[in-house]
Amino acid sequence: MAIQVAHPLDPLTPQEISQTAKHVRAGFPDGEAYFRVITLAEPAKAEMMTFLDGEHSKDAVSEPSKRPARLATVQVFLGQPRDSAHFYELKVNVESGEIVDQEQLLGRHPHVDANDMQKTEQACLSDSRVQAAIKEMQLPEGAVVKIEPWTYATDGMNDMSQKITMCYFYMKLISHPDANHYAYPLDLCVEMSGDARVLKIYHLPNGTSNDISMTAKPYDRRKIFDSSIEYHPDLVSQHRTSTKPYHVLQPDGPSFTTEGNLIRWEKWHLRVGFNYREGLTLHDVRYDGHSLFYRLSLSEMFVPYGDPRMPYARKAAFDLGNDGAGCNANNLQLGCDCLGHIKYFDGWHATSSGDPIKIANAVCCHEIDDGILWKHTNFRTGNAVVTRSRVLVLQTIITVSNYEYIFAFYFGQDASLHYEVRATGIVSTVPINVGDKVPFGTTVAPGVMAPYHQHLFCLRIDPAIAGWNNSLVVEESHAMPLEDQDSSVHNPFGIGYTTRSETVAEECGLDLDHTVNRVFKIVNEDVANPVTEGPVGYKLVPCYSQLVLAHPSSYHAKRSEFGAHAVWITRYHDSELFAAGRHTMQSLGGEGIASWIKKRQQRQEVLSNDNSATKVRKQDIVVWHTFGSTHNPRVEDWPVMPCEKMVVGLKPVNFFTKNPAMDVAPSTQERNRSVLVDDATEAGMNGHCS
Amino acid sequence: MAIQVAHPLDPLTPQEISQTAKHVRAGFPDGEAYFRVITLAEPAKAEMMTFLDGEHSKDAVSEPSKRPARLATVQVFLGQPRDSAHFYELKVNVESGEIVDQEQLLGRHPHVDANDMQKTEQACLSDSRVQAAIKEMQLPEGAVVKIEPWTYATDGMNDMSQKITMCYFYMKLISHPDANHYAYPLDLCVEMSGDARVLKIYHLPNGTSNDISMTAKPYDRRKIFDSSIEYHPDLVSQHRTSTKPYHVLQPDGPSFTTEGNLIRWEKWHLRVGFNYREGLTLHDVRYDGHSLFYRLSLSEMFVPYGDPRMPYARKAAFDLGNDGAGCNANNLQLGCDCLGHIKYFDGWHATSSGDPIKIANAVCCHEIDDGILWKHTNFRTGNAVVTRSRVLVLQTIITVSNYEYIFAFYFGQDASLHYEVRATGIVSTVPINVGDKVPFGTTVAPGVMAPYHQHLFCLRIDPAIAGWNNSLVVEESHAMPLEDQDSSVHNPFGIGYTTRSETVAEECGLDLDHTVNRVFKIVNEDVANPVTEGPVGYKLVPCYSQLVLAHPSSYHAKRSEFGAHAVWITRYHDSELFAAGRHTMQSLGGEGIASWIKKRQQRQEVLSNDNSATKVRKQDIVVWHTFGSTHNPRVEDWPVMPCEKMVVGLKPVNFFTKNPAMDVAPSTQERNRSVLVDDATEAGMNGHCS
Repeated sequence: MAIQVAHPLDPLTPQEISQTAKHVRAGFPDGEAYFRVITLAEPAKAEMMTFLDGEHSKDAVSEPSKRPARLATVQVFLGQPRDSAHFYELKVNVESGEIVDQEQLLGRHPHVDANDMQKTEQACLSDSRVQAAIKEMQLPEGAVVKIEPWTYATDGMNDMSQKITMCYFYMKLISHPDANHYAYPLDLCVEMSGDARVLKIYHLPNGTSNDISMTAKPYDRRKIFDSSIEYHPDLVSQHRTSTKPYHVLQPDGPSFTTEGNLIRWEKWHLRVGFNYREGLTLHDVRYDGHSLFYRLSLSEMFVPYGDPRMPYARKAAFDLGNDGAGCNANNLQLGCDCLGHIKYFDGWHATSSGDPIKIANAVCCHEIDDGILWKHTNFRTGNAVVTRSRVLVLQTIITVSNYEYIFAFYFGQDASLHYEVRATGIVSTVPINVGDKVPFGTTVAPGVMAPYHQHLFCLRIDPAIAGWNNSLVVEESHAMPLEDQDSSVHNPFGIGYTTRSETVAEECGLDLDHTVNRVFKIVNEDVANPVTEGPVGYKLVPCYSQLVLAHPSSYHAKRSEFGAHAVWITRYHDSELFAAGRHTMQSLGGEGIASWIKKRQQRQEVLSNDNSATKVRKQDIVVWHTFGSTHNPRVEDWPVMPCEKMVVGLKPVNFFTKNPAMDVAPSTQERNRSVLVDDATEAGMNGHCS
Repeated sequence: MAIQVAHPLDPLTPQEISQTAKHVRAGFPDGEAYFRVITLAEPAKAEMMTFLDGEHSKDAVSEPSKRPARLATVQVFLGQPRDSAHFYELKVNVESGEIVDQEQLLGRHPHVDANDMQKTEQACLSDSRVQAAIKEMQLPEGAVVKIEPWTYATDGMNDMSQKITMCYFYMKLISHPDANHYAYPLDLCVEMSGDARVLKIYHLPNGTSNDISMTAKPYDRRKIFDSSIEYHPDLVSQHRTSTKPYHVLQPDGPSFTTEGNLIRWEKWHLRVGFNYREGLTLHDVRYDGHSLFYRLSLSEMFVPYGDPRMPYARKAAFDLGNDGAGCNANNLQLGCDCLGHIKYFDGWHATSSGDPIKIANAVCCHEIDDGILWKHTNFRTGNAVVTRSRVLVLQTIITVSNYEYIFAFYFGQDASLHYEVRATGIVSTVPINVGDKVPFGTTVAPGVMAPYHQHLFCLRIDPAIAGWNNSLVVEESHAMPLEDQDSSVHNPFGIGYTTRSETVAEECGLDLDHTVNRVFKIVNEDVANPVTEGPVGYKLVPCYSQLVLAHPSSYHAKRSEFGAHAVWITRYHDSELFAAGRHTMQSLGGEGIASWIKKRQQRQEVLSNDNSATKVRKQDIVVWHTFGSTHNPRVEDWPVMPCEKMVVGLKPVNFFTKNPAMDVAPSTQERNRSVLVDDATEAGMNGHCS
């Protein structure tokens, strides 16, 4: 068996991670290396265009000489103390060890370090002032205090070069390790320094005003209630028994095949990528030999809380930039997270010492049946032809403290593609006086308030629709003007409507408008559809969502620039993967997608003879879609919320010359083997149900 | 076995249909009865409130004396000719035969009569002037002409008391009975009278202008192309073989039980209704003993075309009012239209002679797995708890000439409910000159234009949220004002936001606005949630769609009043089931939801001492949601379009005291029996694939 050479888009192998760490230690022998990131530095797109054009051209064998070098991005503390003065980002040639690029990340902080968080928790709990504060609360006997550390969302009250962690306090009243401590938020919060020192102790506000007091109140016993706050099966008194088993059988196995990270399924071709930050990424997505997307990824997500009170204004999480969708990916379990025949992909991350660490089963790949794909009955003959929709799912699930996100790409046989986010897990809770109400949160249990918050996702779509240079067309449907005698308009009955299209000329942010059926089409103006004679394209089917609510002058808004518009279009740049900027931990704003555009515009104004940098027509472009939910919790979201789904679509629009799923075989009982429930069998079946 | 007494909400049985016809013939011995409709007249809601309150109260046994009488609504021609002067609607007591109510439907036309349509087609084809027109087109040898009859959408050019049918012409070039004639639209259209006489012959416009000519052009041979226009398996040269079998096994049978039309599933309780017009309806929908909805139904759908040219302004279908979702329901086939264990419900309709006719397998009931319901992993212990979402589906599919709609209600274990419409089938086509383009349609094949059109659905939600009297609350999320020194606002960091709610006071139409996260909640102000202390409720999760594009002065807009707003609220009235009015065939407008409201408002202005009729707070209300799609066809929608999904949700919002799905048992491999695809098995599995 030949040794498999990594594809240029494959994540770093464990061997490559180790090798890179070795190179870094050799390159910087003077200071101890404490690694935070060792991940693939994807090749420059210019190089990849050549490589992929070669790979997909029938007569060309990809020459190894043209294979882009394997490079790693490394984030590392070099020397002590592990502060931002010693924090570096390196680009390392994995094979040769050459340090290709080196940047001191002064004033920056890496993503969350679970080890540090644990140390911070321990230091916090063992601090005598904190212990005194806990004592003052006069907690019920047997209460075990739990700390929930939160990264510090900039509020301008601290020096940002100092890393800060906010420790929120909860308690457990039963000893089970999975008892739900979020049901018992306490009136205590401790601000901790990066080197695990107690900076400040807060007694939290419990009503509408910012009533932080310096004195603790005794714990209100009316907040203690029954076991309905629990979710763990050991603690749920009774599960419903009415749900009967449901198995998916695939007697001939799955319809997909894989070769390393390459998946082929029903005319689709795509490569699975994975990194500590974005988690699952997709590359070189093609259908039936046609190039569609160079890269699809969740670029960032932002979860700002709407509770205006101090210190809650510091609750605003960049779950990708600060926490990492990759390093928080669940180990997906066979039979639990999906049904049928399931293929798993592992991810790899690095320990602080530079050793590879497996993120097992981080991505799963399986098929589902999605009901009817298309159907027509000829009413003259009564003959029906119906096909079922088989869908390929690539799914990853992350846990970020209390909350979970399920991210999934769905591939359709009709060349459509959907990206779905399901939000679940436990809503973040804070204490509230029994009987009080606040206008920025919901009381979900006695003394437990779930503050309003938003989830803002940014899907990065790097298109390659029938080639590398694409344009974005904004199309709307408008009523034709009424016909009048002087007009050339022919609309005598007032019922005509037409579409109006505009091709976006410059980098910008755009908004949704369902009232005019505004549609965003990514097109290739150089490739005409032979039937329509217009450009081939894919349209974005957006998720209608409220944008960021925080005031434009607030840090929340400044730090999450992508939240200001639903759709953005930019020119492609290798460095622009993250819509809120490369470094989000305690960021000050002004580094996201709006700033990139603004900087290029300003530069053009200076260089008045050059206005090419912001042109986006027939260029290598990136389209970004901001969507999400304004999540004002319901009681029904407690104690674990049922999935809230958000879906974005990408669908061919005059890309093919007909419905690409016309060749899907009709659905038949012979093939599908369904079972008729008639009144007799049903009675029998139900004979033994409760 | 005791004879089962029909529940008051059960559709008429075949026996009841026969019996009703007999009563009508006996009651009107003088004129031959030609039946169009014999359907259940649902009991007055006032009666049903008493009945259902009794049925669901634990200590009361429903007294037969309080059982509402079985009544039938009958539409019938009494005597000759079968014109609107002889057209009646009767209300008949099924048992006693008493004619409870009688209305002459002067100026009205019943829904489409398939027999009439066939006669019209035949008369049209055998007319010598039509034959001459066909001959003039010089069609290719072997061409078989097919007629597609369309109901006449009012354009003001005809006397509406006369029934009119527009016959559009197509041809088939191969003899297969299911060859796709929509691929060959011809330049011919014939206007036919209700008594099957040719009124007018049109040669259709072929470009942007209204270039109707009185002379035919010979058929352009460039419009004849290959077999890629076909969908029937006999005519598709090759089906993909890559899709492997996928079976759903339910070893213990389904989780639902049925008793007649009553379905019980996972704490849900609901009754299936069915009639010729609305098709599937749901009644007395409850969860865990709580009343939620009295009735859920698709009230109407309107499909106006945007092609302004004569005679296309006459293309605008009321697929419920004119055609009937019930009488056009597909006979659903085991293993084709769904997987797993499937229970079917038959519908019953009446023939013109009053005999019952079965609409077999009109509704199917089955379960699907919908991925993850909720999940949480405790990051401290690594323990994950995950539940899968089992969903009950009630589905019906209708064929309206070229097009199909799949209507499905999805019930969730978390007490959420979704209504999904999938649009599929063949887009309506018209001829176009080869090489021409129009701004109100898409060329989907040489000489074949698919005009732009809209699908506007109106979901009727008759709530009974924890009781009969409900209110509608409109809630929005707004940023708090920035804090200033003189203000009492506490928002020092500019990040706070709150919800603002307004309870709708008067009957009206409302619109969606995702930019302020506008949410519509149906609440019961008299029932407080013990946790939040606010009213219990269900929220509408709307489908964001463009509203009707036709000019307000047009017949299209006047006839489809519900298309003017996305959400409507009215007081309940027994007679107000259909948002565009009871009689839509060739209607003139002014009879829909906006007119009901306006009439009540006007009446109140007259009776200035009585303003109670339009108040909707704490009343028996109905909420209507208009949604759909502006369907500007893609080439990919041809020859049969892949399903376009539209989804509306109804979700509890502070109705329960916690997530009602917390008792769903965790998902385990032992129970679900998934199969791991590892590299070895995959290689083996794929050994025999092509």
